[in-house]
Amino acid sequence: MGGDNAPHIVLAGANIARLRYPDVRFILFGDEAELAPRLKKLRGLPDVVEIHHTSERVLADDKPSQVVRTGKQTSMRLAIDAVKEGRAAGIVSAGNTGALMAMAVLTLRTLPGINRPAIASFFPTLHGETLMLDLGANVSCDAVNLVQFAIMGEVFAREVLGTKVPTVGLLNIGSEEIKGNEALKQAAQTLRESDLADRFHGFVEGDDIPSGTVDVVVTDGFTGNVALKTAEGTAKLIRAFVREAFQSSNSARIGYVFAKRALDKLRVRTDPRRYNGAMLLGLNGVCVKSHGSTDAVGFATAIGVAVDMVKQAVNKSIAERVASGQADSALAVS
Amino acid sequence: MGGDNAPHIVLAGANIARLRYPDVRFILFGDEAELAPRLKKLRGLPDVVEIHHTSERVLADDKPSQVVRTGKQTSMRLAIDAVKEGRAAGIVSAGNTGALMAMAVLTLRTLPGINRPAIASFFPTLHGETLMLDLGANVSCDAVNLVQFAIMGEVFAREVLGTKVPTVGLLNIGSEEIKGNEALKQAAQTLRESDLADRFHGFVEGDDIPSGTVDVVVTDGFTGNVALKTAEGTAKLIRAFVREAFQSSNSARIGYVFAKRALDKLRVRTDPRRYNGAMLLGLNGVCVKSHGSTDAVGFATAIGVAVDMVKQAVNKSIAERVASGQADSALAVS
Repeated sequence: MGGDNAPHIVLAGANIARLRYPDVRFILFGDEAELAPRLKKLRGLPDVVEIHHTSERVLADDKPSQVVRTGKQTSMRLAIDAVKEGRAAGIVSAGNTGALMAMAVLTLRTLPGINRPAIASFFPTLHGETLMLDLGANVSCDAVNLVQFAIMGEVFAREVLGTKVPTVGLLNIGSEEIKGNEALKQAAQTLRESDLADRFHGFVEGDDIPSGTVDVVVTDGFTGNVALKTAEGTAKLIRAFVREAFQSSNSARIGYVFAKRALDKLRVRTDPRRYNGAMLLGLNGVCVKSHGSTDAVGFATAIGVAVDMVKQAVNKSIAERVASGQADSALAVS
Repeated sequence: MGGDNAPHIVLAGANIARLRYPDVRFILFGDEAELAPRLKKLRGLPDVVEIHHTSERVLADDKPSQVVRTGKQTSMRLAIDAVKEGRAAGIVSAGNTGALMAMAVLTLRTLPGINRPAIASFFPTLHGETLMLDLGANVSCDAVNLVQFAIMGEVFAREVLGTKVPTVGLLNIGSEEIKGNEALKQAAQTLRESDLADRFHGFVEGDDIPSGTVDVVVTDGFTGNVALKTAEGTAKLIRAFVREAFQSSNSARIGYVFAKRALDKLRVRTDPRRYNGAMLLGLNGVCVKSHGSTDAVGFATAIGVAVDMVKQAVNKSIAERVASGQADSALAVS
């Protein structure tokens, strides 16, 4: 029931995902009176869907601290409970990020050895994709958090993205060792001495995110959130500039006709809906957050992210990696 | 003598600036043996230039803390001294940012009532430009720093950019009052109660920078630096994508021929050289930092920024504004 266009894009998104993942079944948590009539109209979908009725929902401006206490019958909380109790393999929500985070941490708990979960997502680059975390779960992070994010990101890039030897960078304002705050310096030191040393690239800067210098960019949730939104906004601005340029003269308008096919392909390539679905990594359960303003295509992408996480057993791999890292004294900082 | 392409782009840049600002004279600090032969080749420039010889220079990887102690005869330090002693109205350098910052603070001192200077520069937006500060002078900032940056940014937008009633936003990871760290919440509270209240827009997010939601974006140096470089990198990526698209088929190549004029105009509009020249605001003297990798055109832009700051007497206006603000108890936080 969460997000700007719920519940219809959730249903339509599931209908797209159903064709891509024929073995996946869905439990829809929400108001049956709203869901059932829409569901009936999507042929084929009712076969793989069950509705779990609740009339309560989390609103976009509900305070996470409040929702945690009073929202036990909300659609979001009931969906998280289903993951905790093993009735669902993962949850996908387009609702209130803070509430999802707070309730998921409280209900699912973090994986053993992980202090805080992180929000992770992809950036397009010239040659592929960069994974970045944290994108907003933690306003400030200490060195231990950053090291744990590096471990989780490396596992994800290896297991889900199939990068054989993923490289990891710490986001900073210069590549020299003396740059940045104490948490960054300490995290870099720990990573250089850990068994991730061969994959640790050192510090990277903002422009290394879109240029794809490393496979995994690690940062605190404040910086990551600002960087993500600045990149999205800048991409939007440049697209608007290009659109304006093509409308600025008759010759440009003719050029657009010839170039349209190529530009359409580019639009598909950089379509934000292709990058929808941020993962809450480090939880004892699969939890994916969709953009609140996405459409059915974007929501289907977010479902795909959750399916990948389940199929690749990412959480199990992270837990194993952390357990082996803690045997290694260098990672057992505290 | 600083930057990747010194000293020739500095000389060539001055030669461009000379035509734009016929009343400006230049003192070049550096190695006369390198400067004099190049200078002679640029007709007209010797008339407005004097060389102040020194064989020492700050290198790109010199540590600021060291340069401050041992670099008293470097071209950078001598140029700053000239500003302090009133022999120059301002300094423009493409050299080591940390060293410039450290020596400028030590030599020129901050303006009365300003605890820390901030690096400020412009972002292009759809409808004009956004001023952002701090872009890297201060890794962490307290509420007082952020409030002072807001004051300086507002003065600059009003006096130099000519914006009648500039709006100011604090960069955060959400627009709600509960978001962000304590420094941000405290700064927002102070600004809401200050005589900048009518210009204070509240919190803004990363995508508000390129969309131009406010005239002035205030942030700490770490976040600002990451945001700036992420935006630059993303713009570069999208341009590379567009270039690839135009080379991807014969039809697209024909389209490019028709659209070339419009796209060239766009390139000029978003040319990073048009935005070269970051100001060190809050110092008792005009100090402008050029990108180390810029060319003559970019360096001339940076000179123009310094000329504007001198002509508009920005520092005087900031000092007056701070003094009047301190009478106002709300701004006298400490």
